[in-house]
Amino acid sequence: MDRLSVVAARQPESVGRQVRLSGWVRTRRDSKGGFSFIEINDGSSLGNIQVIADGDLENYESEIKHLSPGSSITVEGEVKASGGKGQATEIHAASVTVHGGADPETYPLQKKRHSFEKLREWAHLRPRTNTFGAVMRVRNRICRSIHEFFQEEDFLWIHTPIITASDCEGAGEMFRVSTLDPANPPRNDKGEVDYARDFFGRASYLTVSGQLEGEIYATALGKIYTFGPTFRAENSNTSRHLAEFWMVEPEVAFYELTDNMSLAERFLKRIVGDVLRDCGEDMDFFQQRIDDTTIARLEKVTGGKFQRVPYSEAIEILEKSGQKFEFPVSWGADLQAEHERFLTEQHFESPVILYDYPATIKPFYMRVNDDAAPDRPTVRAMDVLTPGVGEIIGGSQREDRIDVLEARMREQDLNLDEYWWYRELRQFGTVPHSGFGLGLERMVQFVTGMSNIRDVIPFPRTPGNAEF
Amino acid sequence: MDRLSVVAARQPESVGRQVRLSGWVRTRRDSKGGFSFIEINDGSSLGNIQVIADGDLENYESEIKHLSPGSSITVEGEVKASGGKGQATEIHAASVTVHGGADPETYPLQKKRHSFEKLREWAHLRPRTNTFGAVMRVRNRICRSIHEFFQEEDFLWIHTPIITASDCEGAGEMFRVSTLDPANPPRNDKGEVDYARDFFGRASYLTVSGQLEGEIYATALGKIYTFGPTFRAENSNTSRHLAEFWMVEPEVAFYELTDNMSLAERFLKRIVGDVLRDCGEDMDFFQQRIDDTTIARLEKVTGGKFQRVPYSEAIEILEKSGQKFEFPVSWGADLQAEHERFLTEQHFESPVILYDYPATIKPFYMRVNDDAAPDRPTVRAMDVLTPGVGEIIGGSQREDRIDVLEARMREQDLNLDEYWWYRELRQFGTVPHSGFGLGLERMVQFVTGMSNIRDVIPFPRTPGNAEF
Repeated sequence: MDRLSVVAARQPESVGRQVRLSGWVRTRRDSKGGFSFIEINDGSSLGNIQVIADGDLENYESEIKHLSPGSSITVEGEVKASGGKGQATEIHAASVTVHGGADPETYPLQKKRHSFEKLREWAHLRPRTNTFGAVMRVRNRICRSIHEFFQEEDFLWIHTPIITASDCEGAGEMFRVSTLDPANPPRNDKGEVDYARDFFGRASYLTVSGQLEGEIYATALGKIYTFGPTFRAENSNTSRHLAEFWMVEPEVAFYELTDNMSLAERFLKRIVGDVLRDCGEDMDFFQQRIDDTTIARLEKVTGGKFQRVPYSEAIEILEKSGQKFEFPVSWGADLQAEHERFLTEQHFESPVILYDYPATIKPFYMRVNDDAAPDRPTVRAMDVLTPGVGEIIGGSQREDRIDVLEARMREQDLNLDEYWWYRELRQFGTVPHSGFGLGLERMVQFVTGMSNIRDVIPFPRTPGNAEF
Repeated sequence: MDRLSVVAARQPESVGRQVRLSGWVRTRRDSKGGFSFIEINDGSSLGNIQVIADGDLENYESEIKHLSPGSSITVEGEVKASGGKGQATEIHAASVTVHGGADPETYPLQKKRHSFEKLREWAHLRPRTNTFGAVMRVRNRICRSIHEFFQEEDFLWIHTPIITASDCEGAGEMFRVSTLDPANPPRNDKGEVDYARDFFGRASYLTVSGQLEGEIYATALGKIYTFGPTFRAENSNTSRHLAEFWMVEPEVAFYELTDNMSLAERFLKRIVGDVLRDCGEDMDFFQQRIDDTTIARLEKVTGGKFQRVPYSEAIEILEKSGQKFEFPVSWGADLQAEHERFLTEQHFESPVILYDYPATIKPFYMRVNDDAAPDRPTVRAMDVLTPGVGEIIGGSQREDRIDVLEARMREQDLNLDEYWWYRELRQFGTVPHSGFGLGLERMVQFVTGMSNIRDVIPFPRTPGNAEF
């Protein structure tokens, strides 16, 4: 007797096998012939398997006939070919063991559909629904592809710190991490909170990016990537923001911007290709129930070559487009979502890599272009824009010249001393290097078509929400 | 002209290829014949490749003859078979481009060996040394194997939250996460800090374990694992403790304790087997330079079957051993390192899985054994002990009976309301399930023989240390 998952038992090859199979009841239907059909799911696939439980099973009257949605059972029996619609196999049960019931009066997940808002309150039960099971299987497939892609290209996964004393690029508001008594913190002579007596001997925070520390490892070991949680303490209650989210940041020594673009394109194609190949049933579900543009949008990624367009050229295209935009287009301003969508969805009808952005709108660590017009300085930044969601990857070639770097830091009023180690990477054996960042949850949204970012992470953290 | 890594160029198959190769200078030696030998490393392997730079290269006198350790260069040339000792190939350079120098007066990593303590102060440069390069390559191989193992066994990687409002199992001191102004926090009527006005609307912390949330996903999707950072705010300045470390926690529905043991054994054998197969050069380095028992210790893991021994039997063995232990042995007390070492290194000479521990020394969520002697209640806990390091995995079958669980929670003075969702997992379709935890850094120590845990993580966080 083999223990089998539902997805395995659903394969025609399993017909004839004696199996043991465990899961949760989705529905039970009693036949007038004195037997029951039980649909069970174990999370291994979207689809259930149908179990036929005969009336002569010893616990048929006492237990099986009372099984309600959410109950947990183990079935032993034979896999048989099924004549039922949409199913290749079914199980004829020799025994059904009940582990636990789910009182229909109190179990929240009844047959009626619940809104995603409501399900967020039941974050401990929502993975038992079709939608969230599918999201988590696809999320896992994306994560797996991320690791496989980089490992196969000989990148090392480096764990950059979560707790940090530097606020680095000033990328956003940070959470403070502390063990001081907040009701009565120690104070110094001036009456200020004395962080020298905090756990780390200084004020410390949750990281907003692993990039700067990633550069340390890239400029020693060549090709690295980080993949870990990052944080923003921004009071944004939107469908696109989380206080805690996962980020992937490759960083490569001796890569120039064009190498970085090629890496980003290979990377996205690999992830999307893997999902389309391996998650067919879940992707069909998203296409049918969530967003019917999903598959077409993904095929734009795997289909052709990404367009590579300098920022200045994109501005010209937008200016000449004749489109009415809500936000005006002008050289030196960041592109808005409407501009990005016009470029990817209408003009190029393809993913687009925009590059060489105005220096004024980009952080200090991006490499300054020597050949830009003097009144229009640019840096070697790149954003990958995709139809439907806009920017999905942001990256750059890093400034590797110590004098240029320090001048940019001064321009942006940064304290050079705090970046002593970052500057030393340029002082000792500096090299051209590049990298980018991909927000995992944005990628899961892009792939599944789920509209709220809170529904693509197991336990969303947002202002006012840290339950579970 | 192909861009090649050092490790690829070192393979005999590369002989005859025209290549471009970039890295950092380890040493330069000038021959009387008017040419130079330059050893370069790019992090792709422990070993360097030797570059032969002829005196007639245009920048030979101006640059090449001045290259010092730490300088960064790109070499173009042909890979040739080498007659040199310990190297199959070398590069005959057609050109050498210098990216950046490293002033020997100020560059810290000179030829003399530095202590690991000193190198911790240079966490931005230590990955450029042999030891830390090797540690990070092996750490990466371990992480890769962890993902591959679980993915191949159809587990889903689930991201449990980093910021949490529950202190869960009371596993240790926690860091507070806040955006309140610590100098002047808002207060309620009673003068207490008013966490209702903090970012998440309540007091919140950094997680100490993803287990409880992992159980949510296991009891919905079947087989899951977490792999992420966890935190302890303990003021422990030892070679075995970090405030921030990475943990792997699989959790499986319908697994009983023996299934859990088999999973743990397969898991450890897979990781160690992969490292021994794929990291030969780095492992030889650890064996020769760090700990000459390393390889033998690992072969104990891959070699035979792990011993499975009930706690009570282990106590008897220890009592009858005739050994003098510093800490007395008695039923009901936790085993000390000396006891664990006696069992694994002297008595069994093998990894050992101890199980069925006294209930009094284990947390509330472990399943109570019904058949234990009434005066000696036990729970379905298991620890995997390995020669050399002692406990490396801790796990259990979880209590799936709501009444027993709640009784245990009351015994341990826990607030049942705070665990409402954890209790509901037992109320709705409860199932037997099991899981365990592996501390990544302990595993890297075990595999490499590195004695201080601060030297197996890129940026160690310990009391007083959050630099970088």
